[in-house]
Amino acid sequence: MPTLILVRHGQSQWNLENRFTGWWDVDLTEQGVAEATAAGALLADKRLLPTVAFTSLQTRAIKTLHLALEACGRLWIPETKDWRLNERHYGGLTGLDKQETRDRHGEEQVHIWRRSFDIPPPAMAEGSAFDLAADLRYADVEVPRAESLKLTIDRVLPYWERAILPQLVRDETVIVSAHGNSLRALVKHLSGISDADITDLEIPTGQPIVYHFDDQLTPGERRYLKDL
Amino acid sequence: MPTLILVRHGQSQWNLENRFTGWWDVDLTEQGVAEATAAGALLADKRLLPTVAFTSLQTRAIKTLHLALEACGRLWIPETKDWRLNERHYGGLTGLDKQETRDRHGEEQVHIWRRSFDIPPPAMAEGSAFDLAADLRYADVEVPRAESLKLTIDRVLPYWERAILPQLVRDETVIVSAHGNSLRALVKHLSGISDADITDLEIPTGQPIVYHFDDQLTPGERRYLKDL
Repeated sequence: MPTLILVRHGQSQWNLENRFTGWWDVDLTEQGVAEATAAGALLADKRLLPTVAFTSLQTRAIKTLHLALEACGRLWIPETKDWRLNERHYGGLTGLDKQETRDRHGEEQVHIWRRSFDIPPPAMAEGSAFDLAADLRYADVEVPRAESLKLTIDRVLPYWERAILPQLVRDETVIVSAHGNSLRALVKHLSGISDADITDLEIPTGQPIVYHFDDQLTPGERRYLKDL
Repeated sequence: MPTLILVRHGQSQWNLENRFTGWWDVDLTEQGVAEATAAGALLADKRLLPTVAFTSLQTRAIKTLHLALEACGRLWIPETKDWRLNERHYGGLTGLDKQETRDRHGEEQVHIWRRSFDIPPPAMAEGSAFDLAADLRYADVEVPRAESLKLTIDRVLPYWERAILPQLVRDETVIVSAHGNSLRALVKHLSGISDADITDLEIPTGQPIVYHFDDQLTPGERRYLKDL
């Protein structure tokens, strides 16, 4: 039975500090490492063993994948990394903590940015310390200046169709280690969640979400692996 | 300039115990982890940063790669794993320590197996505890019953030609994290070492070896990165 496992990376340093991270490459905390390992141990415990892996170009998702695969004895499966699975790009908010953002832009505006489906945050300033234009990993990518959730979905879903879905057609057990918003994009698509509701859906860190697919590649219910 | 970096995995538990390992999937020791991280730190220090990675299907080589890439900030580069980069298959010697092997087969015979170019060790017995026939990672592979160095070369070099060399043609900086004998296969080919001499060539663990290539893809001298 084709199966999809979604894992949001374990806690990162900026999750902990409550700062907008987006495409900035922040490492896992010790707790994040433990969450990733626990996710893999749960896969082993439930005997749900991935056969193909996808992740983003961001260290926190890649390390989460590696730690989880190691914990379930599947470090040897093929792994593809792609920027299209990156976190939503938070533009000019990158690096700000929640308080700084409120102080600078006002509580109401922040709420709009965080919770609206298609209003991107302010663009990242040229020459920002968080500008990734010179980062070689994005040499072939037009790095966004800022993304709404809608813009994130616009790059995640074509990749889903082109790269991930064909693995499910081949009856693989696919694991995707990614980010809050790139995973929201997939969950919205697979569980048919409305534009209005998706921004409120929280994807917990390090907690594998499972979809089984039928012969027509129709996804079943979204379930947490811990509840299966 | 197209560049090839070869890294033999850090010390494994069975390196430490002096047991024939071959295709058996043994983890790194703490020292092996430290060696792998140090290899990556050296890459960063010498500013020789890989852009494409290859490794085997064996945990000790995969983890060495991941630790080295993390230490030089290149965890995001594309990575391909293939059984053709696996260690030489030691057949019926797998799991024996050096003393057990001598006791069972005699010193002279052991010397012949270890040092001959084309005499394989005895075949792995059917039903051996070390048989990998049921290991899913080799589901599409005809697992050898035993390999000489020559047989190892016979599967490494076609993979080199087909998968690795095209990356050098594209001017990439390729890192290969693999094993004593799969790396001997590459070094023999690139440095033109004779059948008689190659079995005496030791590849140290966690010590990056570098080849630069000219426009005709002719390899230059083999150098240790630490000496560059």
